[in-house]
Amino acid sequence: MINSKQVFSSGPMGNHEFWMRKALKLAEKGRGWTSPNPVVGAVLVKDETEISSGYHKKYGEPHAEVIAISNAGEKAQGATLYVNLEPCCIHGKTPPCTEAIIKAGIKKVIIGTIDPNPMVNGKGIETLREHGIEVLTGVLEEECRKINRGFFKYITTGLPWITLKLALTVDGFIADVSGNSKWISSRVSRNYVKRRRQNFDSIMVGIGTVMKDNPKLLPLEKSGYIPYRIVIDELLNIPINHNLVSDEYRNRTIIITCNTKKAEKIKHLTNRGVRVLQSASTEFGWVDIKAALKDLAEIGITSIFCEGGSQIAGSLIDKQLIDELEIFYSPKIIGKGINAFSGFYKTIEHPINIKWNHIEQSDEDIHLIGELSSCSPD
Amino acid sequence: MINSKQVFSSGPMGNHEFWMRKALKLAEKGRGWTSPNPVVGAVLVKDETEISSGYHKKYGEPHAEVIAISNAGEKAQGATLYVNLEPCCIHGKTPPCTEAIIKAGIKKVIIGTIDPNPMVNGKGIETLREHGIEVLTGVLEEECRKINRGFFKYITTGLPWITLKLALTVDGFIADVSGNSKWISSRVSRNYVKRRRQNFDSIMVGIGTVMKDNPKLLPLEKSGYIPYRIVIDELLNIPINHNLVSDEYRNRTIIITCNTKKAEKIKHLTNRGVRVLQSASTEFGWVDIKAALKDLAEIGITSIFCEGGSQIAGSLIDKQLIDELEIFYSPKIIGKGINAFSGFYKTIEHPINIKWNHIEQSDEDIHLIGELSSCSPD
Repeated sequence: MINSKQVFSSGPMGNHEFWMRKALKLAEKGRGWTSPNPVVGAVLVKDETEISSGYHKKYGEPHAEVIAISNAGEKAQGATLYVNLEPCCIHGKTPPCTEAIIKAGIKKVIIGTIDPNPMVNGKGIETLREHGIEVLTGVLEEECRKINRGFFKYITTGLPWITLKLALTVDGFIADVSGNSKWISSRVSRNYVKRRRQNFDSIMVGIGTVMKDNPKLLPLEKSGYIPYRIVIDELLNIPINHNLVSDEYRNRTIIITCNTKKAEKIKHLTNRGVRVLQSASTEFGWVDIKAALKDLAEIGITSIFCEGGSQIAGSLIDKQLIDELEIFYSPKIIGKGINAFSGFYKTIEHPINIKWNHIEQSDEDIHLIGELSSCSPD
Repeated sequence: MINSKQVFSSGPMGNHEFWMRKALKLAEKGRGWTSPNPVVGAVLVKDETEISSGYHKKYGEPHAEVIAISNAGEKAQGATLYVNLEPCCIHGKTPPCTEAIIKAGIKKVIIGTIDPNPMVNGKGIETLREHGIEVLTGVLEEECRKINRGFFKYITTGLPWITLKLALTVDGFIADVSGNSKWISSRVSRNYVKRRRQNFDSIMVGIGTVMKDNPKLLPLEKSGYIPYRIVIDELLNIPINHNLVSDEYRNRTIIITCNTKKAEKIKHLTNRGVRVLQSASTEFGWVDIKAALKDLAEIGITSIFCEGGSQIAGSLIDKQLIDELEIFYSPKIIGKGINAFSGFYKTIEHPINIKWNHIEQSDEDIHLIGELSSCSPD
């Protein structure tokens, strides 16, 4: 537990970090609902006491700063505002936050990180300073970047953040020779994965996985936000009675296909509420994965949790499109089976390198999280 | 650092554990040289002061207890003897240790663990007690068992202890599509493996690995004990100019074959000092691995560090002949390559289960040590 007095006495940034942590915690409450906007939390403080707070609840609704100011009423005058992301200075779905801050008579604004959105990117800070407001940036900057890493990648590259999750046997297989993968990882790991889904705008799988397992791809808690469920389905083969296109969340399903000939099926799916995206294809007739990711970003998907199978995993890894690799090694040996990746091979001298950032045990499994690395082997 | 005073005050077993640790440390100095005997260290203590010590230096030479007693001279009278393994009561290459203990007038014997050798197995303790010597057993029993686990398995089953070591890519390959495996794991991991070799009577590989890499399979420190280098070579294909049969340590090489037709080659290799063992074959003409292990135990090999390739690894795993599995996962992805195991496959429901006992980072690699487990999947 963080003791506020201890934090206050821990250095000149101590109290700033304490309030910024509070803003981050608030921001997290909007996870999933705000996309393609970032998650943002704001706290108004006066004489080391909180007078109000707010967070961005949903895309299209008021921003965190505006809610905090509105909750404070006249008390906002002369207060300090803590916010994890630079306040916007643009007219979007809502008026610019800088305007509200200036109007409320806020004295000081403490910011976690600047907004990399080219339309903001320091201009919010500039506007505030021009109006005589003291601005400090970079408080808990790393945490503030991390909480919106999907949005950051999306806004700067036009592509969603991608975490690729794999459950592997000791010998590197995602399924046995009969294609069965139930269950490679432990119940604890599987529940962890279901909770992880809630941190992403969408879950992605290939049609092979859908045909084999008829998955639901839902988060552990169905009461909250339901991420989009994306299926890469070149030939639009998904059976119309499968869970993803027939369950109560079917309006949270996106099918990406390059088959334009099944107009009737597309119409049928669309009428049900399923979204069908026509994507560019490669010379071999597969979905052009990079083009598909751009299409997804365009409809507001800022982050994807990809759960395989081996063809999509292979494409994403081979084209270096993933931002994070998450692996569960189950303590099982099966000798032969389906490899984690298909569609490419590398040599030992020139492999795709990973840098692990997180290693722990998850029940009997080994849980690793890493990123692609450009280091060459020794 | 262990502070003896702290240990003394840590409970009734405190001082016993302190001296037993010293005996274990001494025992370790004989590692490799004593096989097929166990490693044993002994300390003689009087009035909480060490008066002498000893360890079993080499097979055929005096046992630890006898050396300690001889070093103590008349001071041994009335002393307490600490020894990690029950003193022997049999006439082997040397007279029984119990005799020397009784003759020296030792008052008390503190033992780590009883000797599972059916010819001893409590009889040493019995003999000592019959002569009025106080005997306490089970001090640091786990450590004392562990230090001689190879010997324990060998003496109770007639098979050597086997540790299987694999260096794998993230996606479970031991080599790329061209068969190259240099180098999957980091320099730090490779040096660790070279040091590990010194803890075993022998290193084992298949002829495939020898043909591909022409390895030396030497420990990091060449000044000390050199483990035997065992090659499973069904057809006796090893080229006579390869390192293992031509270098200065060739008298530490054992070739296991089921080819009886190459009498000239066998003679040539034998004349050089290489040992050629004719082994039983399976119906497919492969070396019968279990029969080969029994043959190796018969010539005094109590432990094997197996370094692949996939065929031997597959046989050992499939026949559940390994006692320990040691894996280095290198942070490299190659997509396709040579699988860790060949010759068998299992289903996800009925895999071979592993229980990890040790997980750590080794430079950029993940280093795991485990054992076969009989738990069923969840």
